[in-house]
Amino acid sequence: MSALPDTMTAIVIDGKGGPEVLVPRSIAVPKPGLGQVLIKVHAAGVNRPDVLQRQGLYPAPKGHSEILGLEVAGEIAALGEGTQRFKEGDLVMALVNGGGYAEYCIAEEPATLPIPAGLSMTQAAGVPETFFTVWHNVFERGGLTAGSWFMVHGGTSGIGVTAIQLAKAMGAKVIATAGGADKCAACLELGADRAVDYRSEDFVEVVKDVTGKRGVDVILDMVGGDYVDRNIRSLADDGRLVYIAFLKGAKVEVDLMRVMLKRLTITGSTLRIRPTEVKGRIARALEENVLGRLADSSIKVVMDSTFPLAEAAKAHARLDQGTHIGKIVLTVAG
Amino acid sequence: MSALPDTMTAIVIDGKGGPEVLVPRSIAVPKPGLGQVLIKVHAAGVNRPDVLQRQGLYPAPKGHSEILGLEVAGEIAALGEGTQRFKEGDLVMALVNGGGYAEYCIAEEPATLPIPAGLSMTQAAGVPETFFTVWHNVFERGGLTAGSWFMVHGGTSGIGVTAIQLAKAMGAKVIATAGGADKCAACLELGADRAVDYRSEDFVEVVKDVTGKRGVDVILDMVGGDYVDRNIRSLADDGRLVYIAFLKGAKVEVDLMRVMLKRLTITGSTLRIRPTEVKGRIARALEENVLGRLADSSIKVVMDSTFPLAEAAKAHARLDQGTHIGKIVLTVAG
Repeated sequence: MSALPDTMTAIVIDGKGGPEVLVPRSIAVPKPGLGQVLIKVHAAGVNRPDVLQRQGLYPAPKGHSEILGLEVAGEIAALGEGTQRFKEGDLVMALVNGGGYAEYCIAEEPATLPIPAGLSMTQAAGVPETFFTVWHNVFERGGLTAGSWFMVHGGTSGIGVTAIQLAKAMGAKVIATAGGADKCAACLELGADRAVDYRSEDFVEVVKDVTGKRGVDVILDMVGGDYVDRNIRSLADDGRLVYIAFLKGAKVEVDLMRVMLKRLTITGSTLRIRPTEVKGRIARALEENVLGRLADSSIKVVMDSTFPLAEAAKAHARLDQGTHIGKIVLTVAG
Repeated sequence: MSALPDTMTAIVIDGKGGPEVLVPRSIAVPKPGLGQVLIKVHAAGVNRPDVLQRQGLYPAPKGHSEILGLEVAGEIAALGEGTQRFKEGDLVMALVNGGGYAEYCIAEEPATLPIPAGLSMTQAAGVPETFFTVWHNVFERGGLTAGSWFMVHGGTSGIGVTAIQLAKAMGAKVIATAGGADKCAACLELGADRAVDYRSEDFVEVVKDVTGKRGVDVILDMVGGDYVDRNIRSLADDGRLVYIAFLKGAKVEVDLMRVMLKRLTITGSTLRIRPTEVKGRIARALEENVLGRLADSSIKVVMDSTFPLAEAAKAHARLDQGTHIGKIVLTVAG
């Protein structure tokens, strides 16, 4: 391992607003602390929370890096005290507490995973954020089981493509909503039993048809707004509605009578603020249940596009545009 | 056991509306079917769902008796085929599918329990509805554990007095809301750590004070309306809000962002429509955890008042008035 440089290129937020506020700058290479590893970043995933943080709507939690980027893939460049599993040079992907849009990034060792055989660095960088999020919210929080009905909105988003594949891999039946024929075709390609084009179909009606009026057991939603009530109407008895974002707003009128009479559960979570212990627990579950399926390609990382680190602004412009299918990833000179 | 009569006195609903629509009438004694017992009723509990049914707002579920009354105590008068546990003459209390306001009432054997030593028939008749409801919603659905904070609204209602005592018995810390000094005193008497007089105090502020800004872990609510948002604000991270009724309405505006950020769970249930299997499971849990505490008086049945069966209208008038503390029970010539 060559000696670490003192400085590195990272993307900083110069002001707040559109993609143009993202600019490369030279800053100090961070030093890994207790239980942390330093990763030489080869690729970094771009996610919706990055956009909100760029716009000033979602400040980094206390103690987290101010630099954008919640997931990276690369090689271990240095080890902090108390680390146990990895050694320098190991190829890893990690869910990180910010700092991904940079040449080097700190990761907590428990939230760091080996890269499954056969995955490229850009693919691996697209794994952690959506897989940790979907696993926790759909299976741990939503309790989706084999043979049950699952619905996910935004079926071609990073979360959507992961949710469709994971739910199918675990034996659930899947309905995915998306806007337009191309996106619906992509959902079916990924294994969805039914894709709903929200531009021309009402998912409430489709759910009724497809499930024989029974409804679905678990819904993963990041839309909110008028989807909340429509989700409640789409759920079967004892169904679970899990929120991970509210693109159309979170202040909504709901009829809780339906929630009581159908014994529904409305819940939600955000991954970012959870302690390392929780992220580590999810990482272990992914290692046990999912990494093998990534290695044998039964679950795929759906890539939309890659951009060099210095062009992070272009990557955000693409995410803002909303026409992507799958992950947008930044590549860093390896 | 003397031969069963062909007819009996029962309270029927003559029209729908105020308490005056409840009138005694002579009807046929029902015959127990497969897995059912016939109970010679000594006492029958009066509950809020009875009022809603009287008003025409809550029709009896399909297959259930049209006669009011969801809980009774008495003696086994006849056994249907396939019953196993009880014999004629056994003293029992049961959660029943309607039919309690009568001299004889059918019960499903799995939802029938022996009367704990020391309880009178009128006390025993006040047990099933609130204890089944509280056990299921607070412990099974809400997951309340020892050492956690619990809040119940309507602390002196039948549900409230049961919830306060059960939560304390299981080791939780309890906040109860009620209207007026007398009711608050009753809540404290039952073991609540803090009673909140909603006429003069804001429970959101009290929860903040009492829990050191942490919030409570489980709330059992039957109020709804503006309490929904205030409950959400009163919950700690990972808190659970469980609905069993909506006295102030179920269509409410909620800020689901709070639900997501605090990882809350909003849920609810109604007991009446659940299958016998579920009621039987709850009955077994009560037998294991609660009946002994009723026998040794560490949990008390809080009695408000008793009325003869023929005066069911007066019992409803008292419930409608809302000044009762504890259970209202109808007595039947034993």
